[in-house]
Amino acid sequence: MALIVQKFGGTSVANAERIFNVARIITETYAAGNNVVAVVSAQGDTTDDFIEKAAEINANPSKREMDVLLSAGEQISMSLLAMAIEKLGFPVISLTGWQAGFLTDSSHGAARIRKINVERLENEVDQKKIVIVAGFQGVNRFDNITTLGRGGSDTSAVAIAAAMKADLCQIYTDVDGVYTADPRYVGNAQKLDEITYDEMLELATLGANVLHNRSVEMAKKYNVNMEVLSSLERLPGTKVKEVTKVEKMLIRGVARDNNVARLSIIGVPDAPGIAFKVFSALAKSKINVDIILQSIGREGTKDISFTVALDHKLEAMKVLDSMKEIIRADKITCDDNVSKVSVVGAGMQSNPGVAAKMFEALSEAQINIQMISTSEIKISVLISRADSEKALTAIHDSFIH
Amino acid sequence: MALIVQKFGGTSVANAERIFNVARIITETYAAGNNVVAVVSAQGDTTDDFIEKAAEINANPSKREMDVLLSAGEQISMSLLAMAIEKLGFPVISLTGWQAGFLTDSSHGAARIRKINVERLENEVDQKKIVIVAGFQGVNRFDNITTLGRGGSDTSAVAIAAAMKADLCQIYTDVDGVYTADPRYVGNAQKLDEITYDEMLELATLGANVLHNRSVEMAKKYNVNMEVLSSLERLPGTKVKEVTKVEKMLIRGVARDNNVARLSIIGVPDAPGIAFKVFSALAKSKINVDIILQSIGREGTKDISFTVALDHKLEAMKVLDSMKEIIRADKITCDDNVSKVSVVGAGMQSNPGVAAKMFEALSEAQINIQMISTSEIKISVLISRADSEKALTAIHDSFIH
Repeated sequence: MALIVQKFGGTSVANAERIFNVARIITETYAAGNNVVAVVSAQGDTTDDFIEKAAEINANPSKREMDVLLSAGEQISMSLLAMAIEKLGFPVISLTGWQAGFLTDSSHGAARIRKINVERLENEVDQKKIVIVAGFQGVNRFDNITTLGRGGSDTSAVAIAAAMKADLCQIYTDVDGVYTADPRYVGNAQKLDEITYDEMLELATLGANVLHNRSVEMAKKYNVNMEVLSSLERLPGTKVKEVTKVEKMLIRGVARDNNVARLSIIGVPDAPGIAFKVFSALAKSKINVDIILQSIGREGTKDISFTVALDHKLEAMKVLDSMKEIIRADKITCDDNVSKVSVVGAGMQSNPGVAAKMFEALSEAQINIQMISTSEIKISVLISRADSEKALTAIHDSFIH
Repeated sequence: MALIVQKFGGTSVANAERIFNVARIITETYAAGNNVVAVVSAQGDTTDDFIEKAAEINANPSKREMDVLLSAGEQISMSLLAMAIEKLGFPVISLTGWQAGFLTDSSHGAARIRKINVERLENEVDQKKIVIVAGFQGVNRFDNITTLGRGGSDTSAVAIAAAMKADLCQIYTDVDGVYTADPRYVGNAQKLDEITYDEMLELATLGANVLHNRSVEMAKKYNVNMEVLSSLERLPGTKVKEVTKVEKMLIRGVARDNNVARLSIIGVPDAPGIAFKVFSALAKSKINVDIILQSIGREGTKDISFTVALDHKLEAMKVLDSMKEIIRADKITCDDNVSKVSVVGAGMQSNPGVAAKMFEALSEAQINIQMISTSEIKISVLISRADSEKALTAIHDSFIH
């Protein structure tokens, strides 16, 4: 008898009809002879409603009380889902984060799971109950309620699957799997049957928006078999695991990330230590720098460009401005009208032709490359945002037919 | 330094403005040098909204899951109230039922408090924090969430006051105290400065709707000083305690209860054991019988009438119907067009004139008395509901000038 962990997001339980749809997926899995633990997010707009309610009262509430408020959202959705399963005639019990044994650190709003005490979960499963667990939440060692932050429910599901040694962790979402590119922009994007953790991680980081990378990192660490599939259509999804079947495909996907800004420091003296000063100041302010480009400028000076996430743009500019005297730059500029487009695939490690093929596709589409960065399984380019959809299609079509 | 427990109902925290009103009452009490533990109900219509959401999914959900759902209501209101207090610049922490140590039995939907583990409550108070506690909820010994049922938040507040040996338990509500009669119906109803537990119990049971009698029973048992007062006006309320100052007033109040139905068994043989059979069958079905009247009927038969709460009417009729053969009654009738009107006051124990005065007032108002019941501190009459407002005023005016 297999143990299957299933996770359903907020849109999947937004109203009574969708709750019953989810209840049927769960009970069919159970009726097929499996044990089922289902992790559920807050209904549709509940979280936004709560944030609005709080903002009316206090623009800057403590994160501890915010977690108390937000965690009520899953308590509502999980009990309603349990009632739907009762209605379908199956044995069921819902558990909050603390009831399910989720112990986290004390970073309210972005807590990390320390441990799951699975005793109660196992006990309820042993009694042949379907167990519904509130995603996104836990308690710290002082019994204060915490929330896991963005993508938290995916992480809750993977953590349960790891702790209970589940056979499969299914992430139900509003897309039916992982695609070679975003199907909204790339006409002949193809669904992948399988993808490795590393490939999925690169795609998640690069803005594929299917799985949060915290959950994929955890799945990789504990070797949890994941599957991404649609809660609306009953089709096989995409399996995420350690090793996948060798496929003809050289690359696994093409992703675009618009959450990026390019900062440039123009005309700094060509002397050692400048780059070090800049990047250590940024690191001190906890600003992550992605692609870096250093080039020769006019008359013994150089230019340094780098990219940061859009939400860090203003703070990064502030850091650079405060250093203007020290680094003696002519000018500091910022461009947030850019996109990062990347190809991802384990197959490219042993194939030097990938970069050439990518640049050729971009050149044929007359798209200018501003910056380049490469890793073992990915090549990223920074281009003008206006070109990004054209770039997605051009690169995708040159690799995947 | 005094410890004051304050309780605020759902209407007192219905929106942001009212939440700040409550936050000011709490912080003023704290700023005056007291420790404060505040118990709060769910906001306004939250509970009704939740019940509606559940009904859409399952007309008959398990009480366990219903408790999970409903208890989210206080979690929302308590965190919002804490945020308002943070905004006013005071140290505060909110605690759910389980965090506050509320241990109950397992009667989901109507749980009884077994014990409060006050360690955490005391700890937070010792740290000079204002503590906000979710009313109405606790956990059973299996860590399942329970709710206390009607009047639960009053009971939560009194239980905390008893367990922490608080100096005062203030129940804030939408009336400013306990009146000699319902001011909506009786023009010159007067607010009482003080009332004993027993008197308050009789008034609560008789439909005065100010305090739930479970909370008063607990206050009496643990000798908790209570005060009922308005959250909107800053006026002294009514103190509820063991012994009150001797006042001129003979009676403490006049109450009306419309939640009553009269059942009659007409023409049963005048033989021993009939009444016993009827009332033991009703007791077995957990139906509380209030006033009982047995009278001689025609030709060696007798009639038995009694009253039950309106919500038990149908079940009581079912019990009587099932016994028709055994008790050989000519006829079983039911009248729910009745009211119970009562005078309450410790002063009447030693004054035989109270009943006479009450009956005189009713007679002068030409109101027919159907049944009478008396206890040491109360006299109740059953009358036609159409006469009940006239009766309230007539009795009130004859005792209280």
